[in-house]
Amino acid sequence: MVVALVGASGRLGSAVNGILKRQHLVFEVDKEGGEYKSLQEIPFEYDIIVDCSCADQSVESTFDALENGIPVVIACTGHTEEQIKKIKECSKIVPVFLSYNMAIGAEVFKEAADLISQRFDSDVHIHEEHHAAKKDAPSGTALSLREVISKNNPKVEISSARGGDVIGNHEVSFFGKNEIIRLSHLAENRNAFAEGICKAAEYLRCCKPGFYDMSDLVEHFPIRSL
Amino acid sequence: MVVALVGASGRLGSAVNGILKRQHLVFEVDKEGGEYKSLQEIPFEYDIIVDCSCADQSVESTFDALENGIPVVIACTGHTEEQIKKIKECSKIVPVFLSYNMAIGAEVFKEAADLISQRFDSDVHIHEEHHAAKKDAPSGTALSLREVISKNNPKVEISSARGGDVIGNHEVSFFGKNEIIRLSHLAENRNAFAEGICKAAEYLRCCKPGFYDMSDLVEHFPIRSL
Amino acid sequence: MVVALVGASGRLGSAVNGILKRQHLVFEVDKEGGEYKSLQEIPFEYDIIVDCSCADQSVESTFDALENGIPVVIACTGHTEEQIKKIKECSKIVPVFLSYNMAIGAEVFKEAADLISQRFDSDVHIHEEHHAAKKDAPSGTALSLREVISKNNPKVEISSARGGDVIGNHEVSFFGKNEIIRLSHLAENRNAFAEGICKAAEYLRCCKPGFYDMSDLVEHFPIRSL
Amino acid sequence: MVVALVGASGRLGSAVNGILKRQHLVFEVDKEGGEYKSLQEIPFEYDIIVDCSCADQSVESTFDALENGIPVVIACTGHTEEQIKKIKECSKIVPVFLSYNMAIGAEVFKEAADLISQRFDSDVHIHEEHHAAKKDAPSGTALSLREVISKNNPKVEISSARGGDVIGNHEVSFFGKNEIIRLSHLAENRNAFAEGICKAAEYLRCCKPGFYDMSDLVEHFPIRSL
Repeated sequence: MVVALVGASGRLGSAVNGILKRQHLVFEVDKEGGEYKSLQEIPFEYDIIVDCSCADQSVESTFDALENGIPVVIACTGHTEEQIKKIKECSKIVPVFLSYNMAIGAEVFKEAADLISQRFDSDVHIHEEHHAAKKDAPSGTALSLREVISKNNPKVEISSARGGDVIGNHEVSFFGKNEIIRLSHLAENRNAFAEGICKAAEYLRCCKPGFYDMSDLVEHFPIRSL
Repeated sequence: MVVALVGASGRLGSAVNGILKRQHLVFEVDKEGGEYKSLQEIPFEYDIIVDCSCADQSVESTFDALENGIPVVIACTGHTEEQIKKIKECSKIVPVFLSYNMAIGAEVFKEAADLISQRFDSDVHIHEEHHAAKKDAPSGTALSLREVISKNNPKVEISSARGGDVIGNHEVSFFGKNEIIRLSHLAENRNAFAEGICKAAEYLRCCKPGFYDMSDLVEHFPIRSL
Repeated sequence: MVVALVGASGRLGSAVNGILKRQHLVFEVDKEGGEYKSLQEIPFEYDIIVDCSCADQSVESTFDALENGIPVVIACTGHTEEQIKKIKECSKIVPVFLSYNMAIGAEVFKEAADLISQRFDSDVHIHEEHHAAKKDAPSGTALSLREVISKNNPKVEISSARGGDVIGNHEVSFFGKNEIIRLSHLAENRNAFAEGICKAAEYLRCCKPGFYDMSDLVEHFPIRSL
Repeated sequence: MVVALVGASGRLGSAVNGILKRQHLVFEVDKEGGEYKSLQEIPFEYDIIVDCSCADQSVESTFDALENGIPVVIACTGHTEEQIKKIKECSKIVPVFLSYNMAIGAEVFKEAADLISQRFDSDVHIHEEHHAAKKDAPSGTALSLREVISKNNPKVEISSARGGDVIGNHEVSFFGKNEIIRLSHLAENRNAFAEGICKAAEYLRCCKPGFYDMSDLVEHFPIRSL
């Protein structure tokens, strides 16, 4: 397929580009003179947009997808509620994929945390670790984990560590009576996310209009093909 | 209820006794002159048998349960296939509970390992740790984990460490592409098992004849009451 | 030896008592009518005082030690600077042992953390876990660790988790460039502290007047005898 | 400086090249027609040889270093005792650096393991994890760790896990009485080794003839400059 990759020169965008290029034609879209070149000006037809840039631009990308009647994978974070609302509106007409942790394993990890919190009476603590340059804490993944777990158990705390060049490590500890269950997810490198983004693009291309996230992808794909 | 506790003076039996006594009447049955006193000679009526002794004796206990038409919880390990067959035969007439890890969290842990192995493409490694005096390796729990996981993924290896006074620690590592999920269960002390055994006894008392294990208990009890 | 054990009926005191009793004569001192019975009223001669009660009482115990010209092991926490000053004053006349983590392994753990922070360029994070009932955070051990590490590296953060019945778990993560070193200490049960307290008592009995802590004990004892 | 980098196109060699190039002139030496081009044929003068190829070739590189009177850093593994003997012989005339784990943190990790095993009475277990393609087990680092620890404590066991794309993870567990100390080292990516190799080259250039390893490097460099 032909992919318009927005934010292709960023750290995550480069990793995505490296993987997509093996099997697909990629049109790289990057900032020029401080602004992203309009997707309208791309001289080719493209089948899908993958956006690894930033929240603001991803809304523009979604509008472009809408105009072209093609799907869009949003692989950036930090959207306002207003932006999410706009994106969801578009997803009534074209397929939109949005997830705040694009690693496939992170989704399975979340499902397992959900299961354990339903079944095991415990105090829950989430500890997350990221590289020293990451400014926001707790991470989006930790917040999303807490949201899932707190439906089953209101006693969920989060702590954060920032140091070195950790790509992303999340650990959930379930402190029960006389026993402890721990569950962790480590992203070893950015390809963990890049691979998930590429899978999402391949998956979304065949989807009906709608709002999709990682749970749909994990649900859909038979494990060995992921 | 009135409980006949076989193997009451052993390490696990003592822990079970300590918990049962708070709410129930316990009749302690221990070895006398090298042999377990026949349950037949107990001068009281009892409602249930809990056996924390050994595989051989637990078969006798099951026969006693059969004769008295009462349930039996088997909390020891190391049965031969022949013994399991006999026990299952009895479970057609009376309720029998048998599980090789009586900690409630260990069951939830196994369910989570099952879920992850269904969803996450990975090489799986189980590492288990127990006190220096434990002679058999791998542990029964590790073997049972492998059995569950290998239905979804044949690539499962086990390693074992023996040292200090570790009650029981099991970790499953799912090594995926660019990401790792880990799941572990730590029994902090023997009460982790003792509490599970007492819950099993309370649960089994109201069950119809049949063969039950920890998955039934976890399924049945609403989490906050466990 | 004859030990006056102050706070003998508390959780830690009971554990200490259980171990001391095997080889020594223990005189148990506990609160009566809201106050600790004066050690003066003990009708026996005793060789050493071990105090597992509370900061205030431990100062009294130190004065008693001074009057009797015998050593005192202080195994409680939360002293004010003023109290520490008084205790140190007494240690000019009699041997005094004071450490905020009485587990022998915790001392070795601290020494290893010190070594790593001297040698390995990294961002350091301490994460500590204790049972849900522990109100203060961070733990005294975490604070003391930070003090040691921050001599070599000012970038030390601490986070705390409270849940279940964790006796005490401390992990130090050294996030370097492309590599991570982690070091952790787990107290499996209260005997970890009780054993250290008993060793301290045996050690202190033969010491000259002075102020001693765990580093002296670890330094002194040949490993196999600990 | 001018570096002759042998095995420059391999996975490790590429990583080393990427870092060296930033500050030094690198002459890449790779297999041609199944054989490494003789270093003699290099048309430039070079200051040092760094060999990331294989045991056999590294002996040749050492001979070349000898002929040119320059230092050599050997960053490959699997030497026979005979080869080590030859290399050590050369180190009487020129500086030679050889270490089986070139990550700086791995050396600090080993020193900490040494310290703990001297001080803490325990059963020791080493568990190491590497990517699925690594055929040998246990790893060289695990074997070298055991050698160091077993001087203090003969009770050292090793287990290995192979899976996914783990670059290298080593954990040492010290199972004591009632307490456990754990120490681990994770190489997040190959740059962990490549950085160590480059530091070794810079260090070795100013050394007198002799046989050097990571302990010399860690000893020598003030931490902030590493």
